[in-house]
Amino acid sequence: MCILTRALIRVKRYTHICKFSTHGCRRQKYTTDDNPLEPNNTIIGAEEDGRWPRRIVSGLQPTGALHVGNYFAAVRRCVQLQEQGQDVMMFIADLHALTTKQVSPAAMQDNTLQLTAYLLASGLDPARTVLFAQSAVPRHAELCWVLTCLATQARLAHLPQYRERTAGGGDLGAGLLLYPVLQAADVLLYRATHVPVGADQLQHLQLAALLARTFRHRYGPAFPTPRALLPADGSDRVRSLRDPAKKMSKSDPDPKSRIVLADSDDAVRAKIRKAVTDFTPQVTFDPATRPGVSNLVLLQCLAEDKTPEEVTDEAGGLTTAQYKRVVAEALVSVLGPMRARAEELQSRPRLLRDVLRHGAARARRRADAVYADVAALTGLAPVELMEADKKLKVA
Amino acid sequence: MCILTRALIRVKRYTHICKFSTHGCRRQKYTTDDNPLEPNNTIIGAEEDGRWPRRIVSGLQPTGALHVGNYFAAVRRCVQLQEQGQDVMMFIADLHALTTKQVSPAAMQDNTLQLTAYLLASGLDPARTVLFAQSAVPRHAELCWVLTCLATQARLAHLPQYRERTAGGGDLGAGLLLYPVLQAADVLLYRATHVPVGADQLQHLQLAALLARTFRHRYGPAFPTPRALLPADGSDRVRSLRDPAKKMSKSDPDPKSRIVLADSDDAVRAKIRKAVTDFTPQVTFDPATRPGVSNLVLLQCLAEDKTPEEVTDEAGGLTTAQYKRVVAEALVSVLGPMRARAEELQSRPRLLRDVLRHGAARARRRADAVYADVAALTGLAPVELMEADKKLKVA
Repeated sequence: MCILTRALIRVKRYTHICKFSTHGCRRQKYTTDDNPLEPNNTIIGAEEDGRWPRRIVSGLQPTGALHVGNYFAAVRRCVQLQEQGQDVMMFIADLHALTTKQVSPAAMQDNTLQLTAYLLASGLDPARTVLFAQSAVPRHAELCWVLTCLATQARLAHLPQYRERTAGGGDLGAGLLLYPVLQAADVLLYRATHVPVGADQLQHLQLAALLARTFRHRYGPAFPTPRALLPADGSDRVRSLRDPAKKMSKSDPDPKSRIVLADSDDAVRAKIRKAVTDFTPQVTFDPATRPGVSNLVLLQCLAEDKTPEEVTDEAGGLTTAQYKRVVAEALVSVLGPMRARAEELQSRPRLLRDVLRHGAARARRRADAVYADVAALTGLAPVELMEADKKLKVA
Repeated sequence: MCILTRALIRVKRYTHICKFSTHGCRRQKYTTDDNPLEPNNTIIGAEEDGRWPRRIVSGLQPTGALHVGNYFAAVRRCVQLQEQGQDVMMFIADLHALTTKQVSPAAMQDNTLQLTAYLLASGLDPARTVLFAQSAVPRHAELCWVLTCLATQARLAHLPQYRERTAGGGDLGAGLLLYPVLQAADVLLYRATHVPVGADQLQHLQLAALLARTFRHRYGPAFPTPRALLPADGSDRVRSLRDPAKKMSKSDPDPKSRIVLADSDDAVRAKIRKAVTDFTPQVTFDPATRPGVSNLVLLQCLAEDKTPEEVTDEAGGLTTAQYKRVVAEALVSVLGPMRARAEELQSRPRLLRDVLRHGAARARRRADAVYADVAALTGLAPVELMEADKKLKVA
């Protein structure tokens, strides 16, 4: 039995109850016949021209523990798509993490393995979904350079996230300007047709679409125009528990503002108990005027796959304090078992590395095929020069 | 006999008189004991700390035919260093060529093979000097991304070449801003200790030195601080034949402004005959007040390895027209035989590709070793994830 098979059997053993993690999508039809993408997604972007097989590519930065917002919006959605029989690729965006100074080199490696454990614990099946670390596939950086030569500085400097982060002035890193180009490379490299994003990432995906078109005009067709999959369940709108005016964020200095996947059941309960709401006791869903309570309703909806109407009906008569206990238990029942599986997996780093190695080999094979076309169209070194020549005895 | 040996024997056959091309360095001592770099070079930059073995890395863009200025300043100098027994690497900078729109994809591949032919015809020995196409080594782009995350936009925007090219305004490509970072990656990737440059490239090499230091401060020591080798023979000061106020340039719209290596003997003679000089008949060397005639004196000095005094003494009594014939013949006697060898080599594209493949394999091995250290220091994917795992049977 080859190493891979053994590794995958071991993963299965630790994730045998992985169906649990697709909890919250009971309304979806798991058909592989027509494979609808719509159930939990709103598709934004130009119509497919049908020439490119459907492929979904998503990435997560290993810059800190995932929070529930990341989980519902990014991880669980990919698991759902995987369960629909879609071709899903999920990468750990360590090259992107270099643009921030927060993460030490040792932490980056730890985070990468931790993230891998949580992805597997969430139900990502490495035999179906290609799961890998971005920096293990050199073509990401290579395609990034090719696309850099097609991007204009003005276009990059006008992206809203760039303008937000540079609002304070100072001596700005070039990585801050260029990372949307690397994002474009991440998805074009695999000819992604659909990319799960939140609303705040739409303009970055439009840049990827623009670069795909620019490449086509200058060199010829190599990439589909990627379209956005926006979550239809509100999972990209989870707010901070301490300041519901802000999104829940990994980089918020207050750890009480977010529930991370590694939080113990008691920590989850404590954070929800202390969540900022308002002085109206009734449980209603009205994000504009009552963002705090509505955020708790949203979290329960996501955890239990319910509509806001169902949740507020059930909560009729509860005080806010009582309702917080309901929300906390709903989250604990999703996150607790997942955390237990992830912790078991984290105690087996060799297994996690095997999974990443297997994924990287598959990703490299796909990336090499696309990049060979890029090289041929742009006039870069033909593939035979890039490949190790086994016939050559090199000194 | 392996393919490589056969290829190299064939190269030898075509370059058996390659010593000719090191013409112009008769004053150098070819000692491999102390290996002095000074004879034809002025070394600029901080003292070596001695930890890093001496290595020289240089690159040429495949954006058009090399001119005599390129030949004397870049190509011949590397051949001289090779003959001194130095560790020399020479790459064809096709990734850089993407930043300009002038070169079509087909032209880029043709130019790459043509440049390879001229480099071999100049005496570059692919068994000693590592000769390869930049895009055949993925680590250039990968290290470029790592360094991009260390560079500041302000530093890049203040480089003089960037300011020159952006003086006209317009929508600027991001490649224009980033190419000095790729240049830094080109030399740091091989732990170059010395880089042959012209005076106009000194600031770009200073950027590479800065990025090496920044990397050391943030992550640890991975790179020596590269030092500049400025030519001591004036070969970086060859002027346009039509406007001696400007440098001779590949991108000058007037092809009569430069002598390219592919020019026929008659074309060389005609271009020198039409070179702009002044109305003083005497041959003197005074670049400030008589740039046209002094440029011809410089070309003869470079072609015949003479000092300006020797050349002007010999030219005593000649009219400018007569002296131009002397300069033309001096150039023809260097360029003619080289062109003949290059044309022979160009008729053997398979041989040229074999040479590039061999060089790329050697370069990749060196680059992989350095990048493994970079990955370990930065926390990127450990090498075992990057390498194809032969033990894994991937589906």
